[in-house]
Amino acid sequence: MRLLVANANTTEAITQACADAARAAAAPGTEIIPATPRFGPAVISSRAENVIAGHALLELLAEHAGQVDAVLLAVSHDTALDAARQMMPCPVVGMTEAACLVGCMAGGRFGLVTFGGVETYRELVGRHGVSSRLAGVAGVDATPPEAVADPEGVGAKVLAAVESLAAQGADSVVLAGAALAGFDRRLRARAPVALLDGMACGVRMAELLVALQLPKPRSGSYAALSGRSGIELSPALAAMLRGGQ
Amino acid sequence: MRLLVANANTTEAITQACADAARAAAAPGTEIIPATPRFGPAVISSRAENVIAGHALLELLAEHAGQVDAVLLAVSHDTALDAARQMMPCPVVGMTEAACLVGCMAGGRFGLVTFGGVETYRELVGRHGVSSRLAGVAGVDATPPEAVADPEGVGAKVLAAVESLAAQGADSVVLAGAALAGFDRRLRARAPVALLDGMACGVRMAELLVALQLPKPRSGSYAALSGRSGIELSPALAAMLRGGQ
Amino acid sequence: MRLLVANANTTEAITQACADAARAAAAPGTEIIPATPRFGPAVISSRAENVIAGHALLELLAEHAGQVDAVLLAVSHDTALDAARQMMPCPVVGMTEAACLVGCMAGGRFGLVTFGGVETYRELVGRHGVSSRLAGVAGVDATPPEAVADPEGVGAKVLAAVESLAAQGADSVVLAGAALAGFDRRLRARAPVALLDGMACGVRMAELLVALQLPKPRSGSYAALSGRSGIELSPALAAMLRGGQ
Amino acid sequence: MRLLVANANTTEAITQACADAARAAAAPGTEIIPATPRFGPAVISSRAENVIAGHALLELLAEHAGQVDAVLLAVSHDTALDAARQMMPCPVVGMTEAACLVGCMAGGRFGLVTFGGVETYRELVGRHGVSSRLAGVAGVDATPPEAVADPEGVGAKVLAAVESLAAQGADSVVLAGAALAGFDRRLRARAPVALLDGMACGVRMAELLVALQLPKPRSGSYAALSGRSGIELSPALAAMLRGGQ
Amino acid sequence: MRLLVANANTTEAITQACADAARAAAAPGTEIIPATPRFGPAVISSRAENVIAGHALLELLAEHAGQVDAVLLAVSHDTALDAARQMMPCPVVGMTEAACLVGCMAGGRFGLVTFGGVETYRELVGRHGVSSRLAGVAGVDATPPEAVADPEGVGAKVLAAVESLAAQGADSVVLAGAALAGFDRRLRARAPVALLDGMACGVRMAELLVALQLPKPRSGSYAALSGRSGIELSPALAAMLRGGQ
Amino acid sequence: MRLLVANANTTEAITQACADAARAAAAPGTEIIPATPRFGPAVISSRAENVIAGHALLELLAEHAGQVDAVLLAVSHDTALDAARQMMPCPVVGMTEAACLVGCMAGGRFGLVTFGGVETYRELVGRHGVSSRLAGVAGVDATPPEAVADPEGVGAKVLAAVESLAAQGADSVVLAGAALAGFDRRLRARAPVALLDGMACGVRMAELLVALQLPKPRSGSYAALSGRSGIELSPALAAMLRGGQ
Repeated sequence: MRLLVANANTTEAITQACADAARAAAAPGTEIIPATPRFGPAVISSRAENVIAGHALLELLAEHAGQVDAVLLAVSHDTALDAARQMMPCPVVGMTEAACLVGCMAGGRFGLVTFGGVETYRELVGRHGVSSRLAGVAGVDATPPEAVADPEGVGAKVLAAVESLAAQGADSVVLAGAALAGFDRRLRARAPVALLDGMACGVRMAELLVALQLPKPRSGSYAALSGRSGIELSPALAAMLRGGQ
Repeated sequence: MRLLVANANTTEAITQACADAARAAAAPGTEIIPATPRFGPAVISSRAENVIAGHALLELLAEHAGQVDAVLLAVSHDTALDAARQMMPCPVVGMTEAACLVGCMAGGRFGLVTFGGVETYRELVGRHGVSSRLAGVAGVDATPPEAVADPEGVGAKVLAAVESLAAQGADSVVLAGAALAGFDRRLRARAPVALLDGMACGVRMAELLVALQLPKPRSGSYAALSGRSGIELSPALAAMLRGGQ
Repeated sequence: MRLLVANANTTEAITQACADAARAAAAPGTEIIPATPRFGPAVISSRAENVIAGHALLELLAEHAGQVDAVLLAVSHDTALDAARQMMPCPVVGMTEAACLVGCMAGGRFGLVTFGGVETYRELVGRHGVSSRLAGVAGVDATPPEAVADPEGVGAKVLAAVESLAAQGADSVVLAGAALAGFDRRLRARAPVALLDGMACGVRMAELLVALQLPKPRSGSYAALSGRSGIELSPALAAMLRGGQ
Repeated sequence: MRLLVANANTTEAITQACADAARAAAAPGTEIIPATPRFGPAVISSRAENVIAGHALLELLAEHAGQVDAVLLAVSHDTALDAARQMMPCPVVGMTEAACLVGCMAGGRFGLVTFGGVETYRELVGRHGVSSRLAGVAGVDATPPEAVADPEGVGAKVLAAVESLAAQGADSVVLAGAALAGFDRRLRARAPVALLDGMACGVRMAELLVALQLPKPRSGSYAALSGRSGIELSPALAAMLRGGQ
Repeated sequence: MRLLVANANTTEAITQACADAARAAAAPGTEIIPATPRFGPAVISSRAENVIAGHALLELLAEHAGQVDAVLLAVSHDTALDAARQMMPCPVVGMTEAACLVGCMAGGRFGLVTFGGVETYRELVGRHGVSSRLAGVAGVDATPPEAVADPEGVGAKVLAAVESLAAQGADSVVLAGAALAGFDRRLRARAPVALLDGMACGVRMAELLVALQLPKPRSGSYAALSGRSGIELSPALAAMLRGGQ
Repeated sequence: MRLLVANANTTEAITQACADAARAAAAPGTEIIPATPRFGPAVISSRAENVIAGHALLELLAEHAGQVDAVLLAVSHDTALDAARQMMPCPVVGMTEAACLVGCMAGGRFGLVTFGGVETYRELVGRHGVSSRLAGVAGVDATPPEAVADPEGVGAKVLAAVESLAAQGADSVVLAGAALAGFDRRLRARAPVALLDGMACGVRMAELLVALQLPKPRSGSYAALSGRSGIELSPALAAMLRGGQ
């Protein structure tokens, strides 16, 4: 199967890192197609950037519609997930969504660790409808550059956050944000509970959805687009709105 | 005060209708500045269009930042509301948000009527955090053109939906969607409960927020943007991301 | 418009302070009519006092029914709000209710600070149906006399509570209780998020509801009273129960 | 033990009917002390009347404080329950509260049937915190006089409502409102699930609480009143506010 | 009345301690019938043991069906409560369930203290549908043997937990777990709020349900078993599944 | 990988049907190991049977611990899921749990169809923490024998239920219960939304969890059992309680 790993940031290095992680996690036979949007924020870390990136992501996805078997949104904010799911003819998975659902099968409640602000992640878990399974969110006081420069020091902070969440009742912990990629392997031996990496969970969830061969809904708010139009849209995106494919 | 009435659809006629409604609802001294996005869907009626329009709306707002005292999102989906609220230096209100909050002060629970699908409005009320105040949502089987061609017939359907929601416990009913504009006045004498028009509620809420002169948060996920960057963004939007104004 | 600012405490000085705050917050053209109940607790600070004051408040309101355009309940417990809303022919707003709804438009979640016990305020926010928008409540260890005697010291405590709530995710903070009046202006420059004063929010919400000219519900539990009777009630209150006005 | 059966309506006949029901339900050794308020609505059937009756009820209770072992609020609205519970030195139970808690032990979810409007009962169950155990509420289209004049016809309507709630998942049904008294015995043989009478459940819950001899909380919002004052209150009520007994 | 006090652990000493506590709490005329399962865990302290004990408990109950007037599950996990309630022809009460419902009548919110892990108790309160009435759960760092060896030291830890929960808003505290039996009497004079003992609450709730003489539901998921079969079940349990008694 | 497909009913034919379904759904390389309990109900259709089957299932699982890579509980009630997840050293998945989580990725909300009573499934979805994603449950009036005898007639009823749930907002529908096996393929072409088969979803989720190689939690209520004991347990189950493997 062909899996589109669609970054919502325009930083190519993040796309490549996500693609590497996806390839490492994928089953044999899964081809990873990395993609980066034409426009938008370098790195999403605000509500406004997330909205801009949503459009960029849909434009990017529209170009691959019909050519891939599934899409993994390679962005921890699960940017524009519901819209992408409606628009595309194939399954679409968000990496944090996937990690949260795996967390639901890894015990009773899960925690979530990220760098910096936690409110948007708390809201995201709420939008996924699994707030009652969330033991807590923890914002580690560190930046992506620090994570690169001092992986041991930052790793200690992440581990402390994980231990605190486990003490609050988390049976597993989602690591949210590209900067936390790799910390699951690094801290695995020392963490009291499983660390859930969004890329790994997401790749496997996408494979699962492809295997199940679920038909697209023909009614409701996730049915395929048809007869919609707009102005100044990319040709591929405009075609998706018109529908008929 | 100067109130930007920002449509998220690119249909200029809707912008003008919203501007007229806003002017009719505004207090003396409120200047209505209508605005239409440069790109995007003609009329939002799907999840995908709503995401595209979010970017278009932010681009539009960025051009007016610093030149208006408040923003009313003239779109019943409250498109990109949280992002707009973060990005702009002035208050931002969503028209359905405003109507729901007025509904909270008009009795115990409110209902919501729209044309067509109801799921995205149910979710929207949930995102506003007032689901427990929602008595029900009703989708009237009619289209905007029908509402123009047969206002009496469609009005009868809307009234039936309002009466059904009142019987379910609604003490007021939000009319959601541009196509329902004007039905509040038309049905007012016959409806058992108050009909809430998003434009009227939104204009007054924007005036209220301006009057209160609340400072912008300096911490958290609604603090002003600063030091963010992206590619292929409009100059005004790029400037907002950079911050400093 | 004529706005009844109805205290639910029998302490005249609080009524005057509230009236002053209301006048400072009101739009030009809004006449503030202060009123104090004939009987009841000096200052409500318990569940029992709040119930007694509910009756006193309804009696007070009944005397002004038909002579005012709106009512603002000048008591942070929003005493008897639902009953007043049902009974009166005009809009009725609670000051904490108003502040909470403004908090919903000021960011994602809001906090609430009060002197002393917090449980009744937590319940109040729940009855308003916006618990999911509440980041936390904080009870400052101070008394109203201390707030008068040592505004700087108490202000520092309030500021610390506000900062703690902001760190928990509050994008604004409601100041609840007459003794906290004025602290919004005093701490505004130092607080990381907006401080919401119930009187200011309430006056503006009352003006908004008057401007919207919403009809009273003709069905349901907020419809006007009719044909009800009782014994040993004040003439005005008895008249309201009988209805027909 | 001495159990105060406190009506919140001023209709003496209701008090007597409640007292009879209480005596029929009570354990040997429980003395029923019926009491009717000095003032207030004849029969509570609106939000405003319920607030007025709250004061009347507290005044009534204050006169019996220290002379009874427990209080049962003989009013299906559980009027002023939290305030009474705070004020009195002995246990206080609401009749609908008691029936709902029994419903929690009679199966998975319970329903509630009343005459007329259902919204205030839905809110009441919510305030008791057991909404997730509520299968539904049904308002029977009948009046108390009709129930007296045509018990068979009205009984058939009540039975139909009970059957409908059972089909929605109710394993028991609370009969709410004095006018439904006796219908539990009348319909018992024909109803598919248990019918819960508030007076019977309430009397037994009050006996249970007396037997458990729980101390009154010394902290929090249910601790005894102390040092509170007011004007134009009955001597007994003023004494309760002052505390010290 | 005859009350079966059914332990779900196979440790006879716990059964005897529970029986003693039940006798101390029971009304005159209530005969306590203690019972211990034929098989199963010595002491339940894990999810797996709780499931095994569920079967053991049903087998035990089946042997007493028709010979007792009510059942109290003498196990703080309320093991197999819903199944026992369905299966038995008489009322069945869980001891923690009973304590939580009493907590609902003892103030606004209640807390819960146990030894060790708290997650399963948090879930249990959620299954009872009263999570919104739960102020918090606290796990005391102590073991049953320590409680026997050093009651003063462990009592101090329990008291500290109770005080902490009261500060979080608890108006009463449930003591959960056999090892905490007796601490309610020991700490009663020093605790700021009522301590709720599951055995005492449960015995009284069982007596209450017997007094109310509620019929068993004839429809729904709690109706009597009929026509069910299985293999390798105890004769009594097999008979219960077949139904007809 | 070796996947234990563990029936909780003792009807061997159901085990075989589940095994066939599992094999049809499994990826190449997944070996299906079917297993039937030694004792317990023939077919679980009540709360009591579900509890008995929980013990039988744990006994069955204990015999395979260490010899399989994952477990799929082949019973639509997800019997003893949390206990099995704690006890086993490998991943454990419930078939309805898996279908619900897939439903979360197939759109906004999902529905659930079963034969007969719906309350226990409604509760099950609640225990999985995804009630807010549930559009509704529908109980089809049909029995397993009827489904075999008249697949067309019963299929029409199932389709009607699916269409009704889609109209209520379901974007996919879980088919719950062994008797509904195969209806997803039969109705697929006619259903407006995807039909989710628990066995197919469960097999793929089990494969996913094995691929992710998550470590078992070392803390909390899902950590491996250790040092627990009981009487009259099967040797394998007793060994699991003792732990150490």
